[in-house]
Amino acid sequence: MDFSLTPAQTDLQERTRRFIADEVIPMENDPRQDAHGPSEALRNDLVARARAHGLLTPHASKEHGGLGLSHVDKAIVFEEAGYSPLGPVALNIHAPDEGNIHLMEEVATPAQKARWLQPLIDGHIRSCFCMTEPPPGAGSDPSMMQTLAVQDGDHYVITGRKWFITGATGAGFAIVMARMEDGRATMFLADMDQPAIVIERQIDAMDSCFTGGHGVVRFDGLRVPADDVLGAVGEGFRYAQVRLAPARLTHCMRWLGQARRAHEVASDYARQRQAFGQPLVEHEGVGFMLADNEMDLHTARLAIWHCAWVLDQGGKGRHESSMAKVMCSEAEWRVVDRSVQILGASGVSGESIVARIFKDMRAFRVYDGPSEVHRWSMAKRIARG
Amino acid sequence: MDFSLTPAQTDLQERTRRFIADEVIPMENDPRQDAHGPSEALRNDLVARARAHGLLTPHASKEHGGLGLSHVDKAIVFEEAGYSPLGPVALNIHAPDEGNIHLMEEVATPAQKARWLQPLIDGHIRSCFCMTEPPPGAGSDPSMMQTLAVQDGDHYVITGRKWFITGATGAGFAIVMARMEDGRATMFLADMDQPAIVIERQIDAMDSCFTGGHGVVRFDGLRVPADDVLGAVGEGFRYAQVRLAPARLTHCMRWLGQARRAHEVASDYARQRQAFGQPLVEHEGVGFMLADNEMDLHTARLAIWHCAWVLDQGGKGRHESSMAKVMCSEAEWRVVDRSVQILGASGVSGESIVARIFKDMRAFRVYDGPSEVHRWSMAKRIARG
Amino acid sequence: MDFSLTPAQTDLQERTRRFIADEVIPMENDPRQDAHGPSEALRNDLVARARAHGLLTPHASKEHGGLGLSHVDKAIVFEEAGYSPLGPVALNIHAPDEGNIHLMEEVATPAQKARWLQPLIDGHIRSCFCMTEPPPGAGSDPSMMQTLAVQDGDHYVITGRKWFITGATGAGFAIVMARMEDGRATMFLADMDQPAIVIERQIDAMDSCFTGGHGVVRFDGLRVPADDVLGAVGEGFRYAQVRLAPARLTHCMRWLGQARRAHEVASDYARQRQAFGQPLVEHEGVGFMLADNEMDLHTARLAIWHCAWVLDQGGKGRHESSMAKVMCSEAEWRVVDRSVQILGASGVSGESIVARIFKDMRAFRVYDGPSEVHRWSMAKRIARG
Amino acid sequence: MDFSLTPAQTDLQERTRRFIADEVIPMENDPRQDAHGPSEALRNDLVARARAHGLLTPHASKEHGGLGLSHVDKAIVFEEAGYSPLGPVALNIHAPDEGNIHLMEEVATPAQKARWLQPLIDGHIRSCFCMTEPPPGAGSDPSMMQTLAVQDGDHYVITGRKWFITGATGAGFAIVMARMEDGRATMFLADMDQPAIVIERQIDAMDSCFTGGHGVVRFDGLRVPADDVLGAVGEGFRYAQVRLAPARLTHCMRWLGQARRAHEVASDYARQRQAFGQPLVEHEGVGFMLADNEMDLHTARLAIWHCAWVLDQGGKGRHESSMAKVMCSEAEWRVVDRSVQILGASGVSGESIVARIFKDMRAFRVYDGPSEVHRWSMAKRIARG
Repeated sequence: MDFSLTPAQTDLQERTRRFIADEVIPMENDPRQDAHGPSEALRNDLVARARAHGLLTPHASKEHGGLGLSHVDKAIVFEEAGYSPLGPVALNIHAPDEGNIHLMEEVATPAQKARWLQPLIDGHIRSCFCMTEPPPGAGSDPSMMQTLAVQDGDHYVITGRKWFITGATGAGFAIVMARMEDGRATMFLADMDQPAIVIERQIDAMDSCFTGGHGVVRFDGLRVPADDVLGAVGEGFRYAQVRLAPARLTHCMRWLGQARRAHEVASDYARQRQAFGQPLVEHEGVGFMLADNEMDLHTARLAIWHCAWVLDQGGKGRHESSMAKVMCSEAEWRVVDRSVQILGASGVSGESIVARIFKDMRAFRVYDGPSEVHRWSMAKRIARG
Repeated sequence: MDFSLTPAQTDLQERTRRFIADEVIPMENDPRQDAHGPSEALRNDLVARARAHGLLTPHASKEHGGLGLSHVDKAIVFEEAGYSPLGPVALNIHAPDEGNIHLMEEVATPAQKARWLQPLIDGHIRSCFCMTEPPPGAGSDPSMMQTLAVQDGDHYVITGRKWFITGATGAGFAIVMARMEDGRATMFLADMDQPAIVIERQIDAMDSCFTGGHGVVRFDGLRVPADDVLGAVGEGFRYAQVRLAPARLTHCMRWLGQARRAHEVASDYARQRQAFGQPLVEHEGVGFMLADNEMDLHTARLAIWHCAWVLDQGGKGRHESSMAKVMCSEAEWRVVDRSVQILGASGVSGESIVARIFKDMRAFRVYDGPSEVHRWSMAKRIARG
Repeated sequence: MDFSLTPAQTDLQERTRRFIADEVIPMENDPRQDAHGPSEALRNDLVARARAHGLLTPHASKEHGGLGLSHVDKAIVFEEAGYSPLGPVALNIHAPDEGNIHLMEEVATPAQKARWLQPLIDGHIRSCFCMTEPPPGAGSDPSMMQTLAVQDGDHYVITGRKWFITGATGAGFAIVMARMEDGRATMFLADMDQPAIVIERQIDAMDSCFTGGHGVVRFDGLRVPADDVLGAVGEGFRYAQVRLAPARLTHCMRWLGQARRAHEVASDYARQRQAFGQPLVEHEGVGFMLADNEMDLHTARLAIWHCAWVLDQGGKGRHESSMAKVMCSEAEWRVVDRSVQILGASGVSGESIVARIFKDMRAFRVYDGPSEVHRWSMAKRIARG
Repeated sequence: MDFSLTPAQTDLQERTRRFIADEVIPMENDPRQDAHGPSEALRNDLVARARAHGLLTPHASKEHGGLGLSHVDKAIVFEEAGYSPLGPVALNIHAPDEGNIHLMEEVATPAQKARWLQPLIDGHIRSCFCMTEPPPGAGSDPSMMQTLAVQDGDHYVITGRKWFITGATGAGFAIVMARMEDGRATMFLADMDQPAIVIERQIDAMDSCFTGGHGVVRFDGLRVPADDVLGAVGEGFRYAQVRLAPARLTHCMRWLGQARRAHEVASDYARQRQAFGQPLVEHEGVGFMLADNEMDLHTARLAIWHCAWVLDQGGKGRHESSMAKVMCSEAEWRVVDRSVQILGASGVSGESIVARIFKDMRAFRVYDGPSEVHRWSMAKRIARG
């Protein structure tokens, strides 16, 4: 049993922390962002800074120019990056690109990697992941997928509608998941600048931390050559799992950073703000909330580290990543909610960064499997004994 | 003991419910509103409709053209009005006007009533209430007030800065609270269109349900004639209590309506949306959340009715209104948070009204006394035995 | 809407409160009780005192010698009686007798009333209610009942095993519920002193507030004359509902009294006990817990009053009594648990009455429908829309 | 970062697990135990079994005949031992002996070790730790200590009253903490069989897992030779901290085992017991509770392991052990409470072991610093920034 970081991990942690403090936090009020997220221009600016600091796309393999981080390494770096809402954008480790990179490193062909993966890792383009559908399609239950891929010679013709497609607007390419006529699902790669891909509209999401926001995307008989199938035909649901277990863990990591930020902002405020004759923090009603924050942050960090270690050992981490997703999304949320409460008026407005974290984070309990779906999966494992 | 409504209450309840359904809900996506709230034009439109239906400013005394509602009457009508985020605007029962009307009916002079109260009740102007200050001024602890009113002949000269002043932009007049040199506080009435009143900026608040949003207001040596003192000099803190106990209860009422709305939207969705082979509502994980919603709504409604009845009996309701504030702000929040969770993607975006309610409601646990301040007051009463 | 008590209710409330304080609380450490509950001798002593004060079996009809209390009346009196763990025994309003009296008043024949109901109301005998069975029989799901009643001429022959039969040891008679060969259920009345009724053993329950404890009862071909069927043949499940909705509400009432007791004991302690330089109650960490107690007691009381009023109006109160059961059993439990925590060492031992209340109350979230079954019922109603 | 166990740890884990399953669980219903705990005879029997399996007092140094376990080793072994309420008694790792052994290994003289520590480690005698006092003495706040030690030549004369002294009845010796005239505190060693030590009575505690129960102990001018001072004069409060941080962590470990037991009993039941047409576990309302149990057990285990590792690195672990105490005592309690709920009638009675665990565990949130005191300590550290 060993909870210590290696010197290399400590070094990377400190470098990332400094980068976020020096280069990213000063840009948090940059005007090049709106209700849908940071603009491409702001993103490019941030990415250039991370590149200059050798911190861009650190989770990619060394072969492709990344730092080849293990899951535990990622836990350490991504938490630091998450300390600013703009940090994951800067390091190119945000959803959905982070998970797409991971998946493509596993299953893409060399030609696919050269064409799509490399510029993605280099931060030159963005990608999106087209799986979720509006009712009555595939939401929490992927088996309800309605988007259809019909084979036509050496092409597939994709028809359907997806929504909440993060980063669709402005993305260079998409991974599209569609159901085959035999019920299995397949993933396809497709450039976004095709007439058969229509971004119908931007969704008015509560969060604003993803470049490109979240779009509704329609596939109007998109023709995809068989060469652009990602991995094997019919393996879409399995790949979604390959992508999801680690991808949801990286959400836990990034949001841990933001929860820690909220806690530190609230702690600073509580030390300075007077009320009823003493600093807020000396009121037990406030101090106990901050103590609970520290315990929730501790819980989240330990659950992440443990699951990351399981994945590094080669485990699939189904149970561990479900537990980590629920524990982190709920514990980190409680931290942010308490921080809002302590900050009072500043917490519910742009006067502090915490209101933004609050709005950004709420969806975390929903995406990549809502808490209820993960509890259900755990319960099914328990039922089997 | 009697929990029944009178025929008059039932009639008013039904009329309000119909008005909200027929006239207000259809305007919820009206473009005349932005991140700060409904525009004046939209407000005027809504107010005109309520006027036409005989539902405008129903809490005002009959003498001034209202319906002379008791506190229990208000509990019934305001819940219905709150069913839409635009309902309280339409009925002219929103903060801060609602509380200002109540206070002015109690303590304003006939001349003050004619000049400011009557057009406020008639829906022709809006008002604001300038009490809260940025740190290190008066927040949860009003005794820390820094805005100063210095007597100068038959005038008072007010200097200071207030923030989170709801509805300041566009308000016709303000009630301004300031500290006297002897430490006591006084309330003043003042038209807003004076050069010594400067709205420095709009705050980027999480909510968007108040016309005029929330502003930072500076008083640059504002001269107020002694005739425009509201009530007696030095009684400001006492009047704030007169205003606050019922005012915070009306928040409970309006938000109850919105929590009920969120619950009904989520229930409808859960009945229709399929996942894993059956409607969401038939999954206990979802159905139990809806059951908890119903219990929380029940708790909130009973606490409101009870406190309203205490006020109607002539009680000050300090303890009861503190309990109701905490119970409602927390129970109603749980309802909305669960509803967001059930709605999933729709719950965290503009695809349903619930995300808007979620963002609008968070501040309710903070304003008019955060939960912690009310728990503290209750604890002090318990300490006295 | 009216939350006031009538003069008669106030009088009864005060008389009960005084009786509990003067006559019952002094006997709480009477040696005539053990881990299974108060002995028959102690019970008889307490009952005699209530009789002398005109408070015995107050919920029975006036015709049978009670006070003919409405449900709201009961809410007031039973809360006061519940202030001592011995109070419900003294007033003869404890489970299962309270519910049995209610049911028998509704459906028993005059002969049955003369033979069993009258002495029960007079406090001369006790009764038990034999419904719950050990696995795999009827627990939360009554439809799984295995005890069988087979018609044999003008008799029924009952065979089966029941458990957690409160008050079985020492009871004068039982209401026995059994399944007929056609699947319907019937209730039977039977004297307990018959060889075919065997009390196999006492269960080692966590509570110790019921005279007679909880037993395992076996029916070895018990022959019951058709005249001793309670109500109509085949109506057992319906009668169980007739009995249950008000019966579970009376649990809420009695436990409310005990929760209030725990809160008051903890409040007194917190006012007196010093730690870290001030009385416990002045530590917000303790004071806030006491404030939460008051809100939980308020929630419970309002839910009870409302449901009692619904029943008094002739409603069946299915939804309301389910809500009240869950709300009260959970809110009252939180009160007692917090009181234990505040009392510290005294709270987890016989040094205060609160440890006893804690152990007595835990089962309340389980019996008469566990929280989960009531949430499930509520969810089914919501599912129907 | 490494969460794996060494082969030696795995071996010890398995041996302990087997020992508990084969030798200890079969004795859980042994009649040689009552409401105060296992008798000396039962304890001796259990201790002999552990000795025979080489598992007795494993935390003692090898020098004194133990296995010289590290804190992480203890985490693994003590969880296994805690799986049965009798396990810690068998292994001689229960409070207060476990903590006393740890402290005496640190600060006792060779003579003291030979006379008291060695027979304690060998399981031949038991000890008690006399610190806590009844109000208005030292409870959560040790600075309020009233027991006095007055120097008289080369002796100290101790006068005062202690309560909740675990294991006092039957203990061979005590560590007694008393205040000096100068306000500092000192620890003394004293054989229990002296006339000046009077066990006034046994406390009627909710738990029944400690041999000897909890007593009220009076010191009537007990004369202690200066040679029997434990460690240095005046260092009592510091030693109490030396003893407490690891001692409270061992509570977390042992109770983790019991919480896991409760969870497994409830899981087995939920898989077998049918209700409403399917096994309980397939009802999400139950399955989600079991999933929450697994997350709470995971949280507790990780917090223990982390803190144990910090202690093994030579850290004092003040903050970590406070966090672990609160996190474990609350998470493990939730597990046991949910398990009771799932088990229903069996959960609130002797029909399952879980009711016993429930009653045994409640005090864990109180002793060795109630949750509130630890939150307060954490808040003070946060206040310092």
